Amino acid sequence: MTVIDFSAFIGRLATASGETILPFFRTSLLVDNKSNRQDFDPVTEADRAAEAVMRRLIKANFPQHGIVGEEFGNEREDADYVWVLDPIDGTKSFIAGFPIWGTLIALLHKGMPVFGMMHQPFIGERFAGDNGSANYKNAAGERRLAVRRCERLQDAVCYTTSPLLMSEADRAAFGRVESEVRLSRYGGDCYSYCMLAAGHLDLVIETELKPYDIAALIPIINGAGGIVTNWDGGPAQNGGRIIAAGDKRVHEAALKRLTGGG
Amino acid sequence: MTVIDFSAFIGRLATASGETILPFFRTSLLVDNKSNRQDFDPVTEADRAAEAVMRRLIKANFPQHGIVGEEFGNEREDADYVWVLDPIDGTKSFIAGFPIWGTLIALLHKGMPVFGMMHQPFIGERFAGDNGSANYKNAAGERRLAVRRCERLQDAVCYTTSPLLMSEADRAAFGRVESEVRLSRYGGDCYSYCMLAAGHLDLVIETELKPYDIAALIPIINGAGGIVTNWDGGPAQNGGRIIAAGDKRVHEAALKRLTGGG
Repeated sequence: MTVIDFSAFIGRLATASGETILPFFRTSLLVDNKSNRQDFDPVTEADRAAEAVMRRLIKANFPQHGIVGEEFGNEREDADYVWVLDPIDGTKSFIAGFPIWGTLIALLHKGMPVFGMMHQPFIGERFAGDNGSANYKNAAGERRLAVRRCERLQDAVCYTTSPLLMSEADRAAFGRVESEVRLSRYGGDCYSYCMLAAGHLDLVIETELKPYDIAALIPIINGAGGIVTNWDGGPAQNGGRIIAAGDKRVHEAALKRLTGGG
Repeated sequence: MTVIDFSAFIGRLATASGETILPFFRTSLLVDNKSNRQDFDPVTEADRAAEAVMRRLIKANFPQHGIVGEEFGNEREDADYVWVLDPIDGTKSFIAGFPIWGTLIALLHKGMPVFGMMHQPFIGERFAGDNGSANYKNAAGERRLAVRRCERLQDAVCYTTSPLLMSEADRAAFGRVESEVRLSRYGGDCYSYCMLAAGHLDLVIETELKPYDIAALIPIINGAGGIVTNWDGGPAQNGGRIIAAGDKRVHEAALKRLTGGG
C-alpha cells in the first residue's frame, strides 16, 4: 500500500475541531434549520466553525487535496486525495446535550475511503481505522477495535437512528429485520457504527445517509473486521441506504430481509 | 427543613459504585435475562456487584436506614430514611457500549425523595438535587442545573426511551403528544431527565417505570425548576407512567394530550 500515513495529521484535525466545538456544547444556542423539510435538521454555529478550522488546516498543509464538507460544499473533488468532513454527526443528540455525536473525518484516495476517524471530544474518545486495522484511544490508553461474532438475526443487537426518518417502503423493509433481531434500539448516528466496530452490537441499518455521514466510518468498520454496504450489497461510500454488520453471516441474513427475501 | 445533609455520603456511594461498574463496561459479559417477558431486560454482573457495594456502605454507616434496590430487594422499607438504588439505569445502552446509562441513588425521608444523584462514571459526570436546587459536576468543575422555558408543545424537544415499551393505549396517547412536538427522540433513560434538568430538552414521557427508575431524578428535576408527575398529575415516586417537563406550561399541555383532551 503506497498510501502516505496521514494519521498524525488527522489527529491534528480532530484536536482542532474538538476545541472549536466544545465551547458550544450544552450551551444555549440559536439553532437554525438548514432545510425547509418537515424533519428537523438543525445545524449549529459549532458545525460551521469546526469545518472552517479543518478546511484551513487542510489547505495550509495539503493545498493540492480536495475537500467535501457538509457546511461549505466541495472544492477540487476530482483530486487524488479528498477529505470528507462532517464536524457534528448527530446534531439532534448534540442539541439535546447527549454526548453521542461525533466529528467524522475521512480521507479518500481515488474515490476510496482509506482512512477514517470518529472523534467524540466531550468524552475524549477517538475511533480510527484504515481498512486494515482499527483502534480506539481515550485518556486511559489505546486498544484495537474488533467486531464480535453474530451468526443469526435472532442473536443480533440492531441500531438505527430512527425509523421515523425512513420512507414507508424502507420502514417496512427495516421492520422485517427488526421483527427478528434480539434487540432493536433507536438513536446513535456515528456512535452506533463505532460500537459495532468495538464489538458491542451487531447491525446498524439506516437510510438517506449522505456520503459524509458514512465515509469516515467505512475504514473503521472494515479495519475492525466488519462489513458495510448499501442495501443492494454495493459500496457504501456514496451514502443512501446503508447496512453495517460485525459478522458477514448476519449481514447476509439482514440483507435478504431488506430486499424482500427471507 | 431538618433533613441531614447526606450529600457527601451519596458522593461516596457514587464513587464506590462507579469503580465497581467501570471494569465491566465495554467488555464481553455474560448477560442473563432477568425476566421471561418478550421484551429484552438484561442485567449484568456489574449491576449486582455495584448494588452490593452500596448496600454494604449504607449498612455500615446508617444501619437504621432502609434500602430498596433493583437487584436484592427491600430491607426495612418502613424506616424513616430509605435509600433507593439502581446501579445501572439504561442497561440496554450499557450492553451496547453507549455511555448514556447512569447510577441512580435516591434518599427518601418518610416516603418523599429528598436527595437524588445520577452518576455517569465512564464520562465522569454527576447530576444531583435536593428539590430546592440541583447541580452538575465533572472534571471541569461544578455548576447549577436549571431548566429552560418552553411554553408550547410545538417548541418542545421530547424524549422517550422507546414507544415499543408502551402498551397500545399508552402508545396512542404518547402519539398525540409526539405529533405536536418540534422534535421527538428515542433512547436515553435517566440521561434524558438529567438533560431536561440541564435545560437541553423539554419533555420526557415514559411508562412502566419502577420506583427506583425515577426516585433519584425527582429531587434533581424539582431542584432545577422543573416538574415531574405521573400521567394523572399525581406524585411520580411510585413510578408507572411518568411525565417530566422543564416548564409547567408544556407539562400541562402534554398532560392534556395524554389524557385524551386537546
